[in-house]
Amino acid sequence: MKLLRVRPLTKEAFAPFGDVIETKSEFLTINEGKAQRHHDLAKVDVESEGGRTLINIFRATPWDRPIGLRVMERHPLGSQAFISMNGRPFLLVVAKAGIPPGPQDLQAFVTQPGQGINYAKGTWHHPLLVLDQPDDVLVVDRGGSGHNLDEIDIIGWNLGLEY
Amino acid sequence: MKLLRVRPLTKEAFAPFGDVIETKSEFLTINEGKAQRHHDLAKVDVESEGGRTLINIFRATPWDRPIGLRVMERHPLGSQAFISMNGRPFLLVVAKAGIPPGPQDLQAFVTQPGQGINYAKGTWHHPLLVLDQPDDVLVVDRGGSGHNLDEIDIIGWNLGLEY
Repeated sequence: MKLLRVRPLTKEAFAPFGDVIETKSEFLTINEGKAQRHHDLAKVDVESEGGRTLINIFRATPWDRPIGLRVMERHPLGSQAFISMNGRPFLLVVAKAGIPPGPQDLQAFVTQPGQGINYAKGTWHHPLLVLDQPDDVLVVDRGGSGHNLDEIDIIGWNLGLEY
Repeated sequence: MKLLRVRPLTKEAFAPFGDVIETKSEFLTINEGKAQRHHDLAKVDVESEGGRTLINIFRATPWDRPIGLRVMERHPLGSQAFISMNGRPFLLVVAKAGIPPGPQDLQAFVTQPGQGINYAKGTWHHPLLVLDQPDDVLVVDRGGSGHNLDEIDIIGWNLGLEY
């Protein structure tokens, strides 16, 4: 199995794939000084073909180690955001939106404390990969009719994660 | 100071005010069996007057004890969801949407592990009250023009929380 290197997630490295949801240096002070509002951190893009915003919880179990990559998927009609509800890290494997990726197109990241992510509409991604323990992850994505899932089987690429 | 009793949050008790965001007994199994999708847990209601969905982080500091209630607010154009990013509890003080509440109309709750909430459009609520330590809370609400905040000063009610 060939191993993909997993890099710490940063806003700059992830920009081709979507948004990193994290606090930033500029914020609004609200609630009589008791809160900072870090405003509008992700492009929620769900309106294609009459879509609407959904809030869901994914209760996820870790995959067996070593993690072998099995499938890449995309949502052609909407963005999809993932935020741990327990401050736990998770792994990302992504490729740019567009024609189906090849093995050389994949990039892998691990979230840092306090980070969530938002896949841009059409970004190719592996299903959710939580790390050493089960986690509940908040997911903000698109509901509505229309074809919103494409998948490609990549078991034959024999790729895994070096983590 | 008169103290409001704080009750554990349940979906049933909170129904007049909005949604409790939590796992439920029915879910979809996805990701080759590695995740449960607990689907569409909150009514994201942000489209009035051309609004759109925002994802934000509120970095919140606890209020001084004993907590005295100072203000109630509502967002007449959109719902607003709050989910701790660290699995921590927070307090809620709410009153039904409609004419401004009186002291007898307020109800107080504390979230249980794994719960977030979504205020329905127009629900009166106190600003975010995290408990014993600072917390980052994910907020899903409405962006766009239009008048989306009303506040009433309730310091004179001399109400606090019994917690």
